Amino acid sequence: MKKTHWLCLLSFLVATIIPATGMCAGEDTMSSILDVQKYDRAIHIMAMLLVGFGFLMVFVKKYGRSALTATFLLVSTAIPIYICINSFGWLGKAPDVIIDELILAEFASASLLICAGAVLGRLKMQQYLALGALFIPCYMFNEWIILENGFGIIPVGRFADTGGSIVIHAFGALFGLGVAMTMTTPQELRSAVETDDISDRFSLLGSMVLWLFWPSFCSALVPPELVPATVVNVILALCGATVATYISTVLLRRKISVGDIANASLAGGVAIGSTCDHATPVQAIVIGVLAGALSTYGFVVILPWLQKVIKKVDTCGVMYLHGLPGLMGGLAAMFVVKGLSGGEQVKGILITIALSLVTGFLAGKIISAIGRRAVPYVDSEEFAE
Amino acid sequence: MKKTHWLCLLSFLVATIIPATGMCAGEDTMSSILDVQKYDRAIHIMAMLLVGFGFLMVFVKKYGRSALTATFLLVSTAIPIYICINSFGWLGKAPDVIIDELILAEFASASLLICAGAVLGRLKMQQYLALGALFIPCYMFNEWIILENGFGIIPVGRFADTGGSIVIHAFGALFGLGVAMTMTTPQELRSAVETDDISDRFSLLGSMVLWLFWPSFCSALVPPELVPATVVNVILALCGATVATYISTVLLRRKISVGDIANASLAGGVAIGSTCDHATPVQAIVIGVLAGALSTYGFVVILPWLQKVIKKVDTCGVMYLHGLPGLMGGLAAMFVVKGLSGGEQVKGILITIALSLVTGFLAGKIISAIGRRAVPYVDSEEFAE
Amino acid sequence: MKKTHWLCLLSFLVATIIPATGMCAGEDTMSSILDVQKYDRAIHIMAMLLVGFGFLMVFVKKYGRSALTATFLLVSTAIPIYICINSFGWLGKAPDVIIDELILAEFASASLLICAGAVLGRLKMQQYLALGALFIPCYMFNEWIILENGFGIIPVGRFADTGGSIVIHAFGALFGLGVAMTMTTPQELRSAVETDDISDRFSLLGSMVLWLFWPSFCSALVPPELVPATVVNVILALCGATVATYISTVLLRRKISVGDIANASLAGGVAIGSTCDHATPVQAIVIGVLAGALSTYGFVVILPWLQKVIKKVDTCGVMYLHGLPGLMGGLAAMFVVKGLSGGEQVKGILITIALSLVTGFLAGKIISAIGRRAVPYVDSEEFAE
Repeated sequence: MKKTHWLCLLSFLVATIIPATGMCAGEDTMSSILDVQKYDRAIHIMAMLLVGFGFLMVFVKKYGRSALTATFLLVSTAIPIYICINSFGWLGKAPDVIIDELILAEFASASLLICAGAVLGRLKMQQYLALGALFIPCYMFNEWIILENGFGIIPVGRFADTGGSIVIHAFGALFGLGVAMTMTTPQELRSAVETDDISDRFSLLGSMVLWLFWPSFCSALVPPELVPATVVNVILALCGATVATYISTVLLRRKISVGDIANASLAGGVAIGSTCDHATPVQAIVIGVLAGALSTYGFVVILPWLQKVIKKVDTCGVMYLHGLPGLMGGLAAMFVVKGLSGGEQVKGILITIALSLVTGFLAGKIISAIGRRAVPYVDSEEFAE
Repeated sequence: MKKTHWLCLLSFLVATIIPATGMCAGEDTMSSILDVQKYDRAIHIMAMLLVGFGFLMVFVKKYGRSALTATFLLVSTAIPIYICINSFGWLGKAPDVIIDELILAEFASASLLICAGAVLGRLKMQQYLALGALFIPCYMFNEWIILENGFGIIPVGRFADTGGSIVIHAFGALFGLGVAMTMTTPQELRSAVETDDISDRFSLLGSMVLWLFWPSFCSALVPPELVPATVVNVILALCGATVATYISTVLLRRKISVGDIANASLAGGVAIGSTCDHATPVQAIVIGVLAGALSTYGFVVILPWLQKVIKKVDTCGVMYLHGLPGLMGGLAAMFVVKGLSGGEQVKGILITIALSLVTGFLAGKIISAIGRRAVPYVDSEEFAE
Repeated sequence: MKKTHWLCLLSFLVATIIPATGMCAGEDTMSSILDVQKYDRAIHIMAMLLVGFGFLMVFVKKYGRSALTATFLLVSTAIPIYICINSFGWLGKAPDVIIDELILAEFASASLLICAGAVLGRLKMQQYLALGALFIPCYMFNEWIILENGFGIIPVGRFADTGGSIVIHAFGALFGLGVAMTMTTPQELRSAVETDDISDRFSLLGSMVLWLFWPSFCSALVPPELVPATVVNVILALCGATVATYISTVLLRRKISVGDIANASLAGGVAIGSTCDHATPVQAIVIGVLAGALSTYGFVVILPWLQKVIKKVDTCGVMYLHGLPGLMGGLAAMFVVKGLSGGEQVKGILITIALSLVTGFLAGKIISAIGRRAVPYVDSEEFAE
């Protein structure tokens, strides 16, 4: 009997320990695999930042060189600054997973590039660097309040914004508007933005790169089991916005504007951000259609009207691609996400609006102290031929 | 002894249940991981659809804006229509895996873009929307017959076409030919397609994006353990086709045509489709070389001859990039795939040819009812400067 | 008691075998999953080879068609030749994992494209094919000596060069210099490279594609658990180099040169190669800053000086983007990688310098036998309009 006893114990040990060891090794590998999968999405986002945002801004014919160089510089300052501030742990604690931190830094860069679009062609290169250095801490401060329970205002997980309609898109656009307040010269109001068929093709390239990688942007930090539904929602929202943009541009302008197609088609991705992991496919396509129509209406009707009223120029129209559709997406979450407290959602949106406008205006004041332009920027000022 | 007995049972339970639980969790995560890996390939295909097909068509200098806008619209109608039809379950049952459905919808979009290449510059934007709405159901009908045993004609798994040489490439090209039958104006036959060094560079960009993501296209739905061999086959076929294209274009034209390089180099990817997961590396490179040579021969010799004979214009020459190499690839399967019934393969090819030409011709009739052109299209008709 | 005995044995068998089976299946799937993850990085590298290197070379306005066609041809010859030589097992034994082999073949292609940059615009297409056929065996010979203990000179694992600063970048650049020795015409020394704002935008596109996929290049063969730290290091090095390039170009030229931005920003990726999986984030950013400054200094100061002294033209300035930063990165490993023998590292670097210059010079002699130019190349020589 003793022998059986020991045999039994041995059987128990061997049978549990051996697979358990294998399992542990498996779990480690598993976590690496999940990190590498996030990394793939991080690279997709990098393609959006450089090629996407960069070339979308090349629609202004005469700012080709400066828009692309500024994109390079903004990304290259934003990412290290974000990671550096995080690693000091000033705002809450840094995420354990280094790839998550990289993705959050990319989100901040996207928001900064949106902001820069509002003042494109009015800053010299060194001012873009200053803009980056001022923007990132403000962005992180808002991110901390809205998503990480900063000051205890909004409990963690109570604000729906997975793909960043509010904290990335609306924040960047409104901050840019704040900066633009101090930066518009009278000449700019009179001179129209010049495009040609070459700059149109480059900006459609940027637009397409943004469109196609958008699902990775929205699902970057979503758990793997929710990725498929999230990406299909994002794609349906983009499809809806693209068709709605075509119909709206034809109805409102009689002719198709490449600028509308290149920009407003993306509004579906902006607006689905807050609800990308909660919406049904039908809700996703409806949000996309509404966002595309709203954005086109913004470019065709609101932009020229507002420019006349407030006498400020938003060069790339970021208010109509990122601002309004972002706010719309944030509000849509109240109808789409089950169990979401409307109060917290509205509170978060209002805080973001206030913070972005105020900090943007202050940043603009500081940057204009480095040099405020009387005449519009031309590439040849700073670039060798 | 009873104690031992119980201990033994306990050992059995603990030792099996604990790892089994772990295993179950592992399997769920595993299936998410596999889905996310398919998603990466789905995004690669999206890059092919928008940037690849879109910019490849920009070789026609004066259709830059319309070709890219049409690409946006075609993809944005095709994907929701495909997913919608599938979700009603009209043709068989919808796949359980939502990412598989997305990839199938992308395949349908690729076929539609190929089809649109045949009539590029002869449709107004709204006609492209109509084309998309007519094409997708026809494509799905053929897909159902060939791959899902529709009408019980071809048993599932008996038709080799993993990467879609027949159901995607040949179907799209021949459907396009059918549409083109009703759409060519006499003026078009007289006016040559204009390119310049800028449109050439854009079209090479599109070509390169197609080339480099082609392995993901062919391996999108292949099980993970076959992905490595499949992608190496596709790359070898593309390498073979590229070198063969260079040699053929020099031999046949004396000078290098950028159009040949940008198009015929891709024929290797088209032709390897049917056999990408079965071929040996040597077979893959041979198929690629033959496809590149055949495609170049098509562009240089058959295209001008056929255009004179049938008096119809295939704007992008999709017959020579997708049609002939696709059919070649489908036939090659009979020699490459072990145990394949040649009869079923030939039957499937013939059904695809018949269905695509007939439905394409009917679609052309419907679309030309919306408006048939007397003079060739120019971007400025529909696009604001 | 016997019953208990048997029950115990059964418990042992069932409890170990069942999970073990599951585990085995899991491990098989796991290895496929890891292969597919490497494949994703292989595709990213392919984007660098075609779109990245291809369009970066389009900065020379008049070589648009030829630079892109040459890129296509060089990649399409290099990959099959590399795989073919490997499969014969001439140099050591072929890797078991087919995806690893593909990635190694892509590394060789990258090195070849770097080499071709040095003589861009001086070879006819058939000479590029010859260059590819001569380069790959020489590259593999050096790779075998440095990394696979060829002739027993450097023990495996004693030379730090994960991302290929030395064996890929420096080898390619110096081989290209060797070829250029025989290829420069007196006219070329007098005629400046022409760019315009369109070729500038295309070359920034190439540069951005290289920049954004560089983390995948460096981490392609790194084990999954090291991928996150590696990619963050590469991104930080690139950010550092980009900012340093902007500051250096402004300080050295007074104006910003798009050529500097497009090229020297990438020097961070070149230099971090040897140490990407060992450096701390701070070390990575320092290496990047130094590489960006060194590379810009090379383009602004060394290039025109050396061209006057040795009367040879390095068309794309590969010495200053890949050569010097690569050597710097290789030397940096001695300070960064713990436990690295400085002797082996220096030995490997010196062997690579010697081998690349000598084999490059010989290859140049052979290629110039096929045809040495008296006047600079123009696209229209070989390309149909």
